[in-house]
Amino acid sequence: MRKCPILGPPPPFGIVMTEPNSPSLPEIRLLAGHSKRLRQGHPWVFSNEIAMTPEAKAMTPGALVTLRDAGDEPLAIATFNPHSLIAARVLDRDLGASITKEWVFVRLQRALRLRDTLFDQPYYRLVHGEADGLPGLVVDRLGDVIAVQANSAGMDLLTPLILDAIENLLAPRAIVLINDAPVRLLEGLTQETALARGQIDGPVPVIENGFSYLADLQEGQKTGWFFDQRPNRAFVADLARGRSVLDVYSYAGGFGLLALARGATSATLVDRSDQGLLLAQQAAATAGLGGALTTHKAEGFAYLEQAEHEGKRFGVVVCDPPAFAKTRKDQASGAKGYRKVARLAAALVEPGGFLFVASCSHHMPIDRFQDETAHGIAQAGRTGRILRSGGAGPDHPVHPDLAESAYLKTLTWAID
Amino acid sequence: MRKCPILGPPPPFGIVMTEPNSPSLPEIRLLAGHSKRLRQGHPWVFSNEIAMTPEAKAMTPGALVTLRDAGDEPLAIATFNPHSLIAARVLDRDLGASITKEWVFVRLQRALRLRDTLFDQPYYRLVHGEADGLPGLVVDRLGDVIAVQANSAGMDLLTPLILDAIENLLAPRAIVLINDAPVRLLEGLTQETALARGQIDGPVPVIENGFSYLADLQEGQKTGWFFDQRPNRAFVADLARGRSVLDVYSYAGGFGLLALARGATSATLVDRSDQGLLLAQQAAATAGLGGALTTHKAEGFAYLEQAEHEGKRFGVVVCDPPAFAKTRKDQASGAKGYRKVARLAAALVEPGGFLFVASCSHHMPIDRFQDETAHGIAQAGRTGRILRSGGAGPDHPVHPDLAESAYLKTLTWAID
Repeated sequence: MRKCPILGPPPPFGIVMTEPNSPSLPEIRLLAGHSKRLRQGHPWVFSNEIAMTPEAKAMTPGALVTLRDAGDEPLAIATFNPHSLIAARVLDRDLGASITKEWVFVRLQRALRLRDTLFDQPYYRLVHGEADGLPGLVVDRLGDVIAVQANSAGMDLLTPLILDAIENLLAPRAIVLINDAPVRLLEGLTQETALARGQIDGPVPVIENGFSYLADLQEGQKTGWFFDQRPNRAFVADLARGRSVLDVYSYAGGFGLLALARGATSATLVDRSDQGLLLAQQAAATAGLGGALTTHKAEGFAYLEQAEHEGKRFGVVVCDPPAFAKTRKDQASGAKGYRKVARLAAALVEPGGFLFVASCSHHMPIDRFQDETAHGIAQAGRTGRILRSGGAGPDHPVHPDLAESAYLKTLTWAID
Repeated sequence: MRKCPILGPPPPFGIVMTEPNSPSLPEIRLLAGHSKRLRQGHPWVFSNEIAMTPEAKAMTPGALVTLRDAGDEPLAIATFNPHSLIAARVLDRDLGASITKEWVFVRLQRALRLRDTLFDQPYYRLVHGEADGLPGLVVDRLGDVIAVQANSAGMDLLTPLILDAIENLLAPRAIVLINDAPVRLLEGLTQETALARGQIDGPVPVIENGFSYLADLQEGQKTGWFFDQRPNRAFVADLARGRSVLDVYSYAGGFGLLALARGATSATLVDRSDQGLLLAQQAAATAGLGGALTTHKAEGFAYLEQAEHEGKRFGVVVCDPPAFAKTRKDQASGAKGYRKVARLAAALVEPGGFLFVASCSHHMPIDRFQDETAHGIAQAGRTGRILRSGGAGPDHPVHPDLAESAYLKTLTWAID
């Protein structure tokens, strides 16, 4: 199961605030010379760029504020968290805007319009934080069930408005809060999962690339679905026709099951999560593909080493591990991890087969990731070439000023 | 029409050589301390890494040689060009290999096997140089017509073997030599286009993403088809349903026609090439889409400026210009060019529409390209987010040691 970091840092306890901001929001002043980036379109202000007065420090984390430059010119309405490195996140540059349920609704509507253009069915990331004008907020749409992640103190405070706006826009059967991202700790928030609205009585279907998977959003299950790999899953599945597939860190079978559906001869899923493997088994059975599916509950590296020892070979090997480089200082050790994955996995690829590797580490640049996987493949005594370098699907847009929000890097190699 | 540079530098006149290499090839020695990169898998040796003896300097450009390190250990069979910066290009690390028609056939066969996995129909780049183990060679397959580019002195000399091997493998109706790449001048080769085998009696169909385009490979026409944009064309065409499309630097309509076929309300193609626009008109007429197509013979910047002046707006704007940064020293001016394209094109995008921009400059890193297009969009007074960052299709694989062979960068923006 992949666990990827989410942009941004954390506030303390959620103080519910459903009132629209009054015309006189509290004000936060930027230090002299620090407004340029904000003026150019960047959605964040860091804590060391702000005049941290006693009043500012005492503010409720996530409160709505007006940002002003050192010369007192108002610049934007933002959420503010005095305890987070990302102290302010811009909501609107229209200083007359009221941050109400209606305001959230309009932002959601714009995000929905884009997804309507991109997809035929209602299964996608509906809101991807800053790039959708809702900094710190993630909303996934799994048919008539909606999963919400509030990853900033601001979005945590705004959650009641957000839930109402989602209800108004989509009238879902249920809305789940999956507030378990580690980034919440940086904002001073607790980690918790809760059913916010409606009812869920079991795993919910997720239709992606024409295949019907299962995801579990029930309270306490803390899972959901990673829509980001959609185009990568489609590409790899098409390569797998007539071949055997190994899908390591498979979770509920995003890669392996689609490969089966598109003509792979067999799929072997490996994950530490019983629950993920069970969901995969159920989805495969429903699709009439259960006979070609094998699941192993195991840690990825351990399985890869064992499989090499046993001389196993696969036509396609997929490795989509957890983030090995969660912070900048993890980069060196993370790089080693990706190299090792590539080395172990490449050894299992049949000559003429394919290796797919992914990194969801913000702190692993694509060049470095490419070098490390190339190194690993060479260490395995194999050669190959890169067929495709892909990122997250288009329902995970990238804010032009937040290159780091392009966290997902994937490489598909043809192996000799 | 896009004209993109091709990797590598040039030899003088083609000296035909069809004999297999004898067991005693001439030898070229690397300078002490310069064999590491080669040993690690890199396919090139630069001229300043070689002992340029009078014998070496006098060799026929493109001749087959054995590369040895300074300690006399043989490392690889390569082609050698004393007049090129890329002096040696590795063909085989098996020192017992004979570079014959059969040897070329086996390499082609391996390249074909990969494309057979990737595509249902025989329209693709069959050989992409170094990444397919045939350094300096490009082979495009347009159904039963094959287009060959020999971009190194070595491949120029081997052309007769290559033609024979292609005949044996594919039995095509015709083989065309499109030896017009500027990179041939760096190798000391002339630029020329010639029908090498068979007959061509008009434009040939190119089926890509399910649409039947037309390409002209007749002698003296110097065109062909750019298969590299295949996945990008598919992505953009799907965005264009129900929208109007402007395709600038369209050549034969790769983006615009597919958009029409997938439900765009209209397509406007702009190119300086009468021939490209005529091919697009013919293909559109055949597909019954001629009524929704408009073509303008114009230079890209001039058209964009004029269209802005006239207040034109489109749901999708595509700009796939020629390489603005052909050499490293062009990077700054190239960057300005991409920024200007983005500024002019963004101004023409309807609110809620899409902008696709591409760079085929080796010397324009993706980060810089992203910054410049973001800057251009901001200069146009528009905001947006990046939906997708894409490279060339998988029939243009990347050699892991030649990052620069990943020349194509594309960005699709959603514009507010």
